[in-house]
Amino acid sequence: MADLDPLFFPKSIAVIGASNRPLTIGHRIVSNLLDNGFTGKVTPVNPKATPILDLESAPSILEVEGDVDLAHVIVKRSLVPRVLLDCAKKGVKVCIVNTSGFKEMGPEGVAAEQEIVAIAKEHGIRLFGPNCQGVMNTDPSVSLYSNFTFAEMTAGHISMVCQGGGVAEVINNYFGMNRVGQRMYASNGNACDISIPEILEYYGDDDDCHAIVLHVESFANPAEFLERVRPVAAKKPILALKSGTTPEGARAVSSHTGGLMAADTVTDVIFDKCGILRFRSLGELCEAAQAFATQPILRGNRLGMVTNAGSPAIIITDEAIGAGLRVPDLADASKDALREKLQAIASIANPIDMAATASGPEFSASLKTLVDDPNLDAAVICFMTPFFVDTLSIADAIVEQAQRTDKTLIAVAMTNPDGKPEWSETVERVRAAGVPVYYFPATAARVLYHMDRYRQLRDRPSAADSAPGSAASPEVRGDVEAARAILAQAKPGPDGFMDPAEVSALLAAYDIPFAPEGRGSTWSEVQATAAKVGYPVVLKAEAPTLIHKTEEGAVVLNLTDDATLKTAHSQLQDRLGDSHDLTFLVQKYQEKGLEVIIGGAAAQGLGSMIMFGLGGVHVELFKDVVFKLAPLTAPEAEELLDSITSAPLLAGYRGQPAIDRAALVNVVRKVSHLLADHPEIEELDCNPVMLFPAPTPPAVVDARIKLASR
Amino acid sequence: MADLDPLFFPKSIAVIGASNRPLTIGHRIVSNLLDNGFTGKVTPVNPKATPILDLESAPSILEVEGDVDLAHVIVKRSLVPRVLLDCAKKGVKVCIVNTSGFKEMGPEGVAAEQEIVAIAKEHGIRLFGPNCQGVMNTDPSVSLYSNFTFAEMTAGHISMVCQGGGVAEVINNYFGMNRVGQRMYASNGNACDISIPEILEYYGDDDDCHAIVLHVESFANPAEFLERVRPVAAKKPILALKSGTTPEGARAVSSHTGGLMAADTVTDVIFDKCGILRFRSLGELCEAAQAFATQPILRGNRLGMVTNAGSPAIIITDEAIGAGLRVPDLADASKDALREKLQAIASIANPIDMAATASGPEFSASLKTLVDDPNLDAAVICFMTPFFVDTLSIADAIVEQAQRTDKTLIAVAMTNPDGKPEWSETVERVRAAGVPVYYFPATAARVLYHMDRYRQLRDRPSAADSAPGSAASPEVRGDVEAARAILAQAKPGPDGFMDPAEVSALLAAYDIPFAPEGRGSTWSEVQATAAKVGYPVVLKAEAPTLIHKTEEGAVVLNLTDDATLKTAHSQLQDRLGDSHDLTFLVQKYQEKGLEVIIGGAAAQGLGSMIMFGLGGVHVELFKDVVFKLAPLTAPEAEELLDSITSAPLLAGYRGQPAIDRAALVNVVRKVSHLLADHPEIEELDCNPVMLFPAPTPPAVVDARIKLASR
Repeated sequence: MADLDPLFFPKSIAVIGASNRPLTIGHRIVSNLLDNGFTGKVTPVNPKATPILDLESAPSILEVEGDVDLAHVIVKRSLVPRVLLDCAKKGVKVCIVNTSGFKEMGPEGVAAEQEIVAIAKEHGIRLFGPNCQGVMNTDPSVSLYSNFTFAEMTAGHISMVCQGGGVAEVINNYFGMNRVGQRMYASNGNACDISIPEILEYYGDDDDCHAIVLHVESFANPAEFLERVRPVAAKKPILALKSGTTPEGARAVSSHTGGLMAADTVTDVIFDKCGILRFRSLGELCEAAQAFATQPILRGNRLGMVTNAGSPAIIITDEAIGAGLRVPDLADASKDALREKLQAIASIANPIDMAATASGPEFSASLKTLVDDPNLDAAVICFMTPFFVDTLSIADAIVEQAQRTDKTLIAVAMTNPDGKPEWSETVERVRAAGVPVYYFPATAARVLYHMDRYRQLRDRPSAADSAPGSAASPEVRGDVEAARAILAQAKPGPDGFMDPAEVSALLAAYDIPFAPEGRGSTWSEVQATAAKVGYPVVLKAEAPTLIHKTEEGAVVLNLTDDATLKTAHSQLQDRLGDSHDLTFLVQKYQEKGLEVIIGGAAAQGLGSMIMFGLGGVHVELFKDVVFKLAPLTAPEAEELLDSITSAPLLAGYRGQPAIDRAALVNVVRKVSHLLADHPEIEELDCNPVMLFPAPTPPAVVDARIKLASR
Repeated sequence: MADLDPLFFPKSIAVIGASNRPLTIGHRIVSNLLDNGFTGKVTPVNPKATPILDLESAPSILEVEGDVDLAHVIVKRSLVPRVLLDCAKKGVKVCIVNTSGFKEMGPEGVAAEQEIVAIAKEHGIRLFGPNCQGVMNTDPSVSLYSNFTFAEMTAGHISMVCQGGGVAEVINNYFGMNRVGQRMYASNGNACDISIPEILEYYGDDDDCHAIVLHVESFANPAEFLERVRPVAAKKPILALKSGTTPEGARAVSSHTGGLMAADTVTDVIFDKCGILRFRSLGELCEAAQAFATQPILRGNRLGMVTNAGSPAIIITDEAIGAGLRVPDLADASKDALREKLQAIASIANPIDMAATASGPEFSASLKTLVDDPNLDAAVICFMTPFFVDTLSIADAIVEQAQRTDKTLIAVAMTNPDGKPEWSETVERVRAAGVPVYYFPATAARVLYHMDRYRQLRDRPSAADSAPGSAASPEVRGDVEAARAILAQAKPGPDGFMDPAEVSALLAAYDIPFAPEGRGSTWSEVQATAAKVGYPVVLKAEAPTLIHKTEEGAVVLNLTDDATLKTAHSQLQDRLGDSHDLTFLVQKYQEKGLEVIIGGAAAQGLGSMIMFGLGGVHVELFKDVVFKLAPLTAPEAEELLDSITSAPLLAGYRGQPAIDRAALVNVVRKVSHLLADHPEIEELDCNPVMLFPAPTPPAVVDARIKLASR
């Protein structure tokens, strides 16, 4: 933690490249520091030592009086190394390099960036940036606005770190316009030294930070991210947006698993492993952050509503039900209480629909009832501001209940605050009590949905046991050394695919149940193998050049005796033998069970991912598959199976028996260990894997493995 | 049209129940009329004839001087009939009955509403309401704010009609806050006489209305809606939100088709048939309306972008690609032009990413390039307002291009307009030029997505030919009379399901291809039937009490000769014969083709809907089905087939041959005519229907029909 204290809690700041010209960054940073009441000392530095904003300047960092914790570096790129050396001499602890023209500008910039990193390393200076905005910290002990932007900051409990400066500004302005209180802020541009994970770790240790907003476009070091950020996410909510399509989306894939990966599957698995709440919409992230900052996380998904306008509450109900929240009946005691206090025309139900004429006392009674109702975990107050109602009394009713409950409260004010001063004051009062206020009715339901997602993420069984290293359950570990030997000797084809016999051996090393099989070329070899495997059998022609066996008609199913097998063998030999160098796989014919696919793919810098989905063509059309980082703990494997839309098929569906789930959990965990132990496996398909009700064991019917080129 | 002229273009208005107390509706309406500059005459009416807001009052409508086109009725419910009689005597043409306590309050209110409808009918008065807000019309010839709400109205080209007054206020306030110009407005509450379709028809004939916003919670008369609104939607965009779960969602269903209906499937088919653009989010509807009101509909889905901040433009790209829009490369000429005009650090690509320092001239050059680029149909200008840039010059650059292009332009201003007067002025200038301005980057892509959805809806082949009556293509019409006779004699079981033999006959009357079959009870009857049908056959035990044949093991597949058939027959008789009164269906065994389900369901007040989806358990898990109103024209049938996610399976997928699509189109059209001709068919399942490559004809393997109780 101490490392970043000089960045977020500096006592003395030098602005190297400060300027008197109002439209420059060097001017703006100084004025931002002053305007926002920085409690420490600010020293502008410029060659002429011109006074800036009435502050005395120093001609060089070396001539600044006293210690300097933090220096902004705004000089042109070629001067940065020199300035950093001076900073080192001066004992500056952290430099925010605002200057651009580094990594973002191609090879020459990369070299320049490497140079400044080397200088910083050698002299023990920490670098923030380059090509960056800066930091803020609303802690009253510093009141730090060390940034050249123009946002309003209200003190509060959300801390932010954003890779994109533009996105950061959108969030900052949203928070400013909606009076969302912020704690700390960082936008570190190229992040050549102080990284996003390091900043997140710092926020994690800051008791006044209750929720974190994160924007990333790429992971400089996925493994570092995972290791440092996971403990932070265990402590407090991290609401994250990842934007930009990653290179994974573009890479050529040759397996089913690869084809089923989305452009940012890697992001999903990283966030999933960390327990980070991913958002697909920046707007929804901002709206949800507003609630996470001030409201307790709901304890369940049961939502109550009170309104003075029926039709918008219907929209909230629609959205809530659609998002998996519940809108239960009120308790009988609640209904009794409401009948006493509300007008006869009020609808005593959930939502409680009072008349448009309802005022403070009715809102107060209704909201108190919702807050006290044991059937509910959260309450939404959805109101218009009719001209004939004292709407401030509605605000006061909300504030009153907010002070006495630890249930989640959300307000929807369908008003134009510009219409009447009373209306904007109504909104302000509710917000000041820590109850977020939204304009569109459905937003309340979306926000509660995201909070409920977080609750489930936080409380999932795997959150407890999936700490690094805890996954090494002996019953699903394979023979790592045997597998290593097979892989070392493997001679993959030109496209990287392993020989099928080697694949079988590799799966066997991890005790992954393969359909009984053997191989041969001549008829007598094939016949002998069939005798060993036992009829009925399947005959498959194999060759490194035969990738899609089914499509090329290289598979003959359900051969029941020597005669039919012999015919199949000679027909395949005749049809394919000329163009391919054939071996024949004789495999025990499996009854058709429930077909699933278990896949694997290398995840750059993170080991491997495992994939699970139902088999068949529908899987590809619906992309109903899910990925997780390998290896899997048992609860993670359970989550993997439960995450697909077609999961009900595993439990038995429309009269079918349930498959042996425990056996399936073991198989996916074994595959996950195979992947994790051997990151040279670039892609893996076990497809199909046939599942049966216990006690029939699962069986991998076909498997393909592609190795990374060495 | 003339009918509603007195409502939207009145020359003289009486406010019956006008009051001097400022917080009453009777006061508010008078003051709204005056404050918004109504060009006609306003006469308050109250018993004491107290002057109101300096207007002379009349003690009764009968004593108002001159003709009265429109009267607001705000008296208590019991007085309304009396007042309406007076209005009739006076010759008032339309009454807006704001008074509540009618249909919405249960049986007594329903009776009261019927009474006023009867009075109005008898005396030729049109009623708007009761329990409603009123109307507005920004046409300068009236400048009419005949409503008790408190919204701001800017003149423009969107007309609105909303069933829910609260939702109407949300939209109104949004438009007010975002300076979206409106044309006419109506919120007609209980809609006892003047209906939403009638109002929409009026808007359709109004040349100054360019787009319509519609909110409904239910369809009072779906057939009227369809007939009157379809021609309107053909003329101008209707953006609609339907809220509230309909009773359909709750009705007990006994067929697969019924189970696959969503709560508001009926709404989908109505909107689909009309060509109405449905929104699921009120917020997105408001945002899109802003663009529809002032921007041309895009001519294609190719989007260009220019920005002064990289990371938000990445978010737009993500959202656009995800929504099916394209972000193509710029034309070479465009790149050349940009290289000349932009700074060296600018990224000449799509998005064009200028530096944060870019100002008017660079925005102007970039936007001109996008507007002139033949590869693009729409352009988004996404900008921050850096303190060091004259942002008004950015606004002027946008205005300049808006004036010279008929491509769609959308702006994203990531600014806090409260931050600096220049910034709010920047936003205002862009809006004033008719270019919508949003805050969150992704909104621009969402809006263009909705506009592109509208373009596709408008241009779909079925839009031209699906006028009522045009669907009667002889080749897919059945023998209506024969079917009617079968239905008249049908003796459905207690649960409403028709006898399977009758089902076969009914399908035959429409030439819907059923697998060859026959029925019998005894072994000799069964044997004779099998001889006629030809082996291999399927044997199915049937009884009115046997609903789920497969689940109850009442189906034996692929019987190849007399011996196996006999065994199956006696086993079924033994196992099921005691508890069910069995008949046996002997059906030609169909090779497994591509299984689809074709279903039907009655649509209250609208005839019937037809459903199509791929067969198998996956269909129910993924609910990958689509409904349309029956009967289907050929283009509608094509759309039906194309609308499911698994549509690629029809065209041949992963090496499978394509099925005979023309034959399938014929089958779904025939089923659609069967449904449309016989609305007593409450639910229909043809499941599975086996499809094959041509020339093998499709075959319905199993079918069930449930009739409405007579």
